[in-house]
Amino acid sequence: MARYEPCDPDFADRIAGSFARQSFMATIGASLRRVEPGRVEIVLPWRDDLTQQHGFFHGGVVGTLADNAGGYAAFTLFPADASVLTVEFKLNLLAPARGRRLLAVSKVARPGRTLTVCQSDVFGLEGRRRNYCATALVTLMCLPGKPDTPEMADGQVPVVA
Amino acid sequence: MARYEPCDPDFADRIAGSFARQSFMATIGASLRRVEPGRVEIVLPWRDDLTQQHGFFHGGVVGTLADNAGGYAAFTLFPADASVLTVEFKLNLLAPARGRRLLAVSKVARPGRTLTVCQSDVFGLEGRRRNYCATALVTLMCLPGKPDTPEMADGQVPVVA
Amino acid sequence: MARYEPCDPDFADRIAGSFARQSFMATIGASLRRVEPGRVEIVLPWRDDLTQQHGFFHGGVVGTLADNAGGYAAFTLFPADASVLTVEFKLNLLAPARGRRLLAVSKVARPGRTLTVCQSDVFGLEGRRRNYCATALVTLMCLPGKPDTPEMADGQVPVVA
Amino acid sequence: MARYEPCDPDFADRIAGSFARQSFMATIGASLRRVEPGRVEIVLPWRDDLTQQHGFFHGGVVGTLADNAGGYAAFTLFPADASVLTVEFKLNLLAPARGRRLLAVSKVARPGRTLTVCQSDVFGLEGRRRNYCATALVTLMCLPGKPDTPEMADGQVPVVA
Repeated sequence: MARYEPCDPDFADRIAGSFARQSFMATIGASLRRVEPGRVEIVLPWRDDLTQQHGFFHGGVVGTLADNAGGYAAFTLFPADASVLTVEFKLNLLAPARGRRLLAVSKVARPGRTLTVCQSDVFGLEGRRRNYCATALVTLMCLPGKPDTPEMADGQVPVVA
Repeated sequence: MARYEPCDPDFADRIAGSFARQSFMATIGASLRRVEPGRVEIVLPWRDDLTQQHGFFHGGVVGTLADNAGGYAAFTLFPADASVLTVEFKLNLLAPARGRRLLAVSKVARPGRTLTVCQSDVFGLEGRRRNYCATALVTLMCLPGKPDTPEMADGQVPVVA
Repeated sequence: MARYEPCDPDFADRIAGSFARQSFMATIGASLRRVEPGRVEIVLPWRDDLTQQHGFFHGGVVGTLADNAGGYAAFTLFPADASVLTVEFKLNLLAPARGRRLLAVSKVARPGRTLTVCQSDVFGLEGRRRNYCATALVTLMCLPGKPDTPEMADGQVPVVA
Repeated sequence: MARYEPCDPDFADRIAGSFARQSFMATIGASLRRVEPGRVEIVLPWRDDLTQQHGFFHGGVVGTLADNAGGYAAFTLFPADASVLTVEFKLNLLAPARGRRLLAVSKVARPGRTLTVCQSDVFGLEGRRRNYCATALVTLMCLPGKPDTPEMADGQVPVVA
């Protein structure tokens, strides 16, 4: 894996703050596990209310983690005053998402000034077993000069355009 | 749009039952709106706990609706004793997912004995305005002889394989 | 379908010139059929040397048309001094690509200053029959100030970054 | 990377034969470089007639190699009497595809009885430099009982259905 040099030394704090402002992460019980330049992990304990009709994690939950881990992996390399937007993501579900926890690991495949591409993998964790349940490609956009703060929602709206 | 003939006349009940067993749909507050052969709509009222850091619906929520609407659009055409699995989906986020409600509309683009492909669009609804916020392609697999019932989770596990 | 107003009135000439400079289009025998604001068609007559092992058009040929039609559909709406780059594309092959000709039709789903998303469909044409064989989503990037001319290859290189 | 056991010991010959029957590979000048269980490499020397308007390899050529390498990587693990079909593929173009040769490397991420998912990477080779220019996810379908031979085109047609 390539090694990246973040341009903002406080990237980890910046990401923790942004993650904390995503209310949907609290709703599903997800948390950041590791944040390194170009690489982010998110974990999510199993809950009965996150499942599909067969009792596994819902595919939408799996996709949410793959997307979000990709967004923050890209965000580690962005300047301090920038926002991140998901342009698109594509996900293959490889096996039922079972286990006591889900783990999403995303790595930057290609950093860019405007667009960054990340590869995300999602695993179901059951004791020491890692069940490889999804892989994704995520394209992120950097919006410089638009800090990722609550005030943005009023007035300065980020738009993919 | 092509017109499809469902092979199970009770497809609407079958889908309502399956949807009701997806606990994650209740968790986020989503409900089925229209169910027709080869076409399904899902709606989701805005809630503060479904958002990302800028106060819009989280991309993972948008993806969840696009995926799920595709799954059930395919499911309308499946035999009564079959389960549906998402093989993969790919989503472009076109605009911030804002509005009082999200609406996902999915249509079967190509039905098949094993694989069915659906096109999903997601809109933010604000009064009479429809804000086109995402489009997706979803590939679904039909698992004949594996009814979509709670018993499946014990023992007979559907696997994409 | 949405109606679009091109910002460059000479968009059709600009696209014809760019298409003519893509040597790969001549290699496979593809040509532009219709060029309208936000919509482009490309056709390709069947040739024995464009096939896969079963005698149908190769999936790579199908993907090439879907991608290229998307690129030029977006390009119709770009300013006169801009280049277009494919950021990513995703393609579902729906049926064997058979017929005497392939037709790719692409429409802009969402125009943007930086990114534009197109939906492409590919059909095999056999007499009056249209065989729907692929559907794709294509994400394009606009590079303003970098005209799409042969000189670009020397020196000023467009990069997705 | 996972290690795979092919069920057909003659997989390499089977793939060489199938590749040789894809006339489009000869048209663009592509050849197999390495074929191992669950992993395939394809190379393609630069030619002026494979380019887009800026003189780089056309994105459709890059996609063709990523798709085809994925198809044959999956095919290494299929039974001797089966055919392979691309269900869908999705590709991020990461950098201009420049270099004297293109190299596509694809690995099986998840083998399955019906569906197999591969990850493909494409590099431009210039002397000893490897320019990472694309990454893709490819979903393949196994059609058992339908040998990959010329006779198939008449009569027994493989269909994704």
